[in-house]
Amino acid sequence: MELGVLYSGGKDSTLAALLLEEFYDVTLVTAQFGISDDWKHARETATAAGFAFERLELDSAVAREAVDQIRDDGFPRNGIQQIHQHALERLAEQEFDAIADGTRRDDRVPTISRAQAQSLEDRHDVDYIAPLSGFGRTAVDRLVEARLEVTVGPSEEIDRADYEAELRAIIADEDGPEAVSKLFPDHEQTYVTGVR
Amino acid sequence: MELGVLYSGGKDSTLAALLLEEFYDVTLVTAQFGISDDWKHARETATAAGFAFERLELDSAVAREAVDQIRDDGFPRNGIQQIHQHALERLAEQEFDAIADGTRRDDRVPTISRAQAQSLEDRHDVDYIAPLSGFGRTAVDRLVEARLEVTVGPSEEIDRADYEAELRAIIADEDGPEAVSKLFPDHEQTYVTGVR
Repeated sequence: MELGVLYSGGKDSTLAALLLEEFYDVTLVTAQFGISDDWKHARETATAAGFAFERLELDSAVAREAVDQIRDDGFPRNGIQQIHQHALERLAEQEFDAIADGTRRDDRVPTISRAQAQSLEDRHDVDYIAPLSGFGRTAVDRLVEARLEVTVGPSEEIDRADYEAELRAIIADEDGPEAVSKLFPDHEQTYVTGVR
Repeated sequence: MELGVLYSGGKDSTLAALLLEEFYDVTLVTAQFGISDDWKHARETATAAGFAFERLELDSAVAREAVDQIRDDGFPRNGIQQIHQHALERLAEQEFDAIADGTRRDDRVPTISRAQAQSLEDRHDVDYIAPLSGFGRTAVDRLVEARLEVTVGPSEEIDRADYEAELRAIIADEDGPEAVSKLFPDHEQTYVTGVR
C-alpha cells in the first residue's frame, strides 16, 4: 500500500514515517508555497533516512489567507491550522492509498479531530493515519532520543520545511522582522539530521 | 525500553504490538480474573507471533462490579470500560517503561481520553501509548488483511481472552445462557491465529 506522509523534516513527521514504514510503501511529501527553499532541508533528511521524497505545491492564496489570519489574531495557531488542513486535502487528492501526518496527542496545533479525519477519508476514499496521536510528549521524546539525530534551536535559526518558515518569510518581507518576533514568540524547533 | 501491551489475542492488540515492536522490547500481557482458561488462547497467539507473554491477575471484585453494571444497564459497554481502565491501572503498576493497548480511533468501547491517558502517565510515571488511536476502521482492516491470519465468528464461538468472555461466563453461570444473549447482542469477534 502506498502511503504519503506530510513531511516537514521535523522529528514528529520523521517518527510518523518510521512507525509506518514496516507496513506501507512510504513517500515523504513536503507541502510548500514556493516562497522559500526550506523544502530542500526536508529532502536532505528524507534522503538521509532512505525515504522517497516529493514536493507538493500549495496555492499561494492559502498562504495569504493564513498570514491575514495570523495578523488579525496576533498569534500563529489558527493560520497554521488552516494551512495544515489545506495541505492534507491536497495530499489526499494524490495517488496514495493512505496519507499520514505527525500530529501528536498533546499538540495544540495542528489538530485533526475524529470527525475531520472521517470526512477526509470519506470524501477522498483514502485512509488518514495519525500514528503519533496515541503518543504523549514523553513517549515521543524517548523515541526521538533513541532513533533520531537532531539539531535543536530557536525557530528562526532552524531551517525547517514547515509552513511556519514560509509564513514568517512573508511577514518579514511585508511587515519587517520585528513583526515576526511579535507574532511568533520564540520557541524551540527541532530539525532532524539523520535516523539511527 | 520495556513495553507491556494489554493483550486479548484479538486483531487490535496484536496490531498494536506489531506497530511498536521495532521501538520497544514488547511483552504481551493478558489480564484475567481466573474465571476461564481463555487466556491460554492469547498465549498461543503471542507465542506464534514470537512475543514474550505474561498473565496479569485482576481482582475478582472488579468482575463482580462490572457484571452488576452490565445487568443494570442492559448492555455491556460501561462494564467493559470499567474493567479496561482497571486493567491499565494494574498494568501501569508493573515494571514497564511504557504500556499500550489496542484502542482505535473509531472504538466506542473501550476509550481512553487524553485526560485519562495523562493521569495514568503522571500517577505511575509510565508512558501510555495507544498506537491504533490514529487509525480508522478501514486502515485497521487493511493492515489486518495484510499482516494477520484470523478466524472470524460470533462472540460466543470465538475463544478470545478479552474480558467479555469471562463476564459472559459469570452471567451464564448465574443468570443462564439466555441472559448472555440478551446482554451481549451477537457481533463478530476476531481471533488471531498467526502473524505474516
